[in-house]
Amino acid sequence: MVGEFELIRQFFAGDAGDDVLLGIGDDAALVRPRADLAMALDTLVAGVHFPLDAPPESIGHKALAVNLSDLAAMGARPAWFLLGLTLERADSTWLAAFSEGLRGLGRTHGVALVGGDVTRGPLTLSVQVSGEVPAEQALRRDGARPGDGIYVSGTLGDAALGLALWQSGQRRGEYADWLVERLHRPTPRVALGLRLRGLASACIDVSDGLYADLGHVLEASGVGARVELARLPLSKPLRALVPGAELWDTALCGGDDYELCFTVPPDREAALARVSAELSLPLSRIGEVRDEPGLALCLADGRFWQPGRRAYAHFRAEDD
Amino acid sequence: MVGEFELIRQFFAGDAGDDVLLGIGDDAALVRPRADLAMALDTLVAGVHFPLDAPPESIGHKALAVNLSDLAAMGARPAWFLLGLTLERADSTWLAAFSEGLRGLGRTHGVALVGGDVTRGPLTLSVQVSGEVPAEQALRRDGARPGDGIYVSGTLGDAALGLALWQSGQRRGEYADWLVERLHRPTPRVALGLRLRGLASACIDVSDGLYADLGHVLEASGVGARVELARLPLSKPLRALVPGAELWDTALCGGDDYELCFTVPPDREAALARVSAELSLPLSRIGEVRDEPGLALCLADGRFWQPGRRAYAHFRAEDD
Repeated sequence: MVGEFELIRQFFAGDAGDDVLLGIGDDAALVRPRADLAMALDTLVAGVHFPLDAPPESIGHKALAVNLSDLAAMGARPAWFLLGLTLERADSTWLAAFSEGLRGLGRTHGVALVGGDVTRGPLTLSVQVSGEVPAEQALRRDGARPGDGIYVSGTLGDAALGLALWQSGQRRGEYADWLVERLHRPTPRVALGLRLRGLASACIDVSDGLYADLGHVLEASGVGARVELARLPLSKPLRALVPGAELWDTALCGGDDYELCFTVPPDREAALARVSAELSLPLSRIGEVRDEPGLALCLADGRFWQPGRRAYAHFRAEDD
Repeated sequence: MVGEFELIRQFFAGDAGDDVLLGIGDDAALVRPRADLAMALDTLVAGVHFPLDAPPESIGHKALAVNLSDLAAMGARPAWFLLGLTLERADSTWLAAFSEGLRGLGRTHGVALVGGDVTRGPLTLSVQVSGEVPAEQALRRDGARPGDGIYVSGTLGDAALGLALWQSGQRRGEYADWLVERLHRPTPRVALGLRLRGLASACIDVSDGLYADLGHVLEASGVGARVELARLPLSKPLRALVPGAELWDTALCGGDDYELCFTVPPDREAALARVSAELSLPLSRIGEVRDEPGLALCLADGRFWQPGRRAYAHFRAEDD
């Protein structure tokens, strides 16, 4: 066990670049922005956002990753983050692994931990991240226009399947290792977000499942869409392990993907192939924005499909 | 009960000025800084940082107040904040009162809620606040020099006494009303922090008790201090209700004061009287910075005093 100030010094102080004038250790951090800032704050609660027995390194990774994913969806370059860490007890082994997961991902993206707070209570993590974006270049949700192509990065549904495997105890094996990694250590698509400035007309990160998140883009933009389910990017493990009847629910409503879903005007679509090649990241055109409201999900035989599962929501109107 | 998105729209959307380019509703907020930024994040856990039966309006007030207090201690002008709200259940009455406490204080200080996250779990609040401060003008902890006067705003120990009264059920009466208010609805000294730019050589907000917090300033500045206990500003209710033997412990180690403690070079001390008058806020000179390390606390009869109680710390090295 370590004391509160020693805990902060030992596990969280130290990373900072020239734009951090004053880091951990005063009443607040001092930073020097060089552009408009995108600011996000996401909270992870043990047992809600990650399994209680998730490895601490992956909890640290994920707490930052989900926030970097929000910046990616804005086309912002990550700059600084703060951490609110609530812990039942200050265990040095746990903290070392957690800190390595958190700060390791921070180093990958050049984003420094500049401050925050450590308190005692049920395990909960709030990360607030700021990223820089040149004026007028942020990717918003409300810019999709009829005729725009709808794209999604990577593959969908892997984290949802990884969670099902983790919860059922099937944590090892040819596919399970990879799927559980997709759950515990999502890859925020920061480089893609930066490349989408000037290309995408709207963008969102897929955290609650594509069905819900594309729905937010359509609602904000005042448009509808037609998506061809046969074009959804699905991984080999997902296709191998999920029965056909559950495939679309897992891919569309599973959540925790942290891929980007974005729309691109027709005259800019050709440029996307180059982005995909340069980033070695699949970008799949899954449908098209339409004037007609609503999200039409089309099966290969022309019939329409409706999800049987709903996106995860913490509070629903009908809950009591 | 309300759903997650409706909850955010109903209770948290709406406040924003010209420097907020995009508020609640996208993947991140977009803001336009005009100066260096001071950034703080403080977490409040139910049952740890506020009593489980505290009024929701005061929980909202306090969650923002403790963060504004950090900005005040930096001499920063509050600009925007984000909220991570973890709730057991979405009760509309509770949320309306909480939101009013939070946003009411925000309006007082011209600081807008621009984003955040609502999740389900044990009641926990993380607020991240950013404030603007001109280059090189931030008040830090490390600038105290021998000969500087040591000052504190307002009065000390009231919140600690308010907590004792609240916990013992003595919540009403001539003094209790005021003391409980000092506990539940602390006043962040934002205007004072702004006026201390160019006057104070170091500054900290008193959240863990003056003994601990002045200690942080001395340590960061590499100096010591002599404080005259007779000069500590104590309220009439505190003097009336706390036995003499416990007075200094309550005043110095109680915590939750959210006053500012700051040091001022001798040639600038005259200017402080004007600041005090203009803000109608008592500023008490309680001692002087010295070369000799350590914090000497002097009684009126010349003897030295040592605290019997330690400042609140979430994790101590000797905890198991």
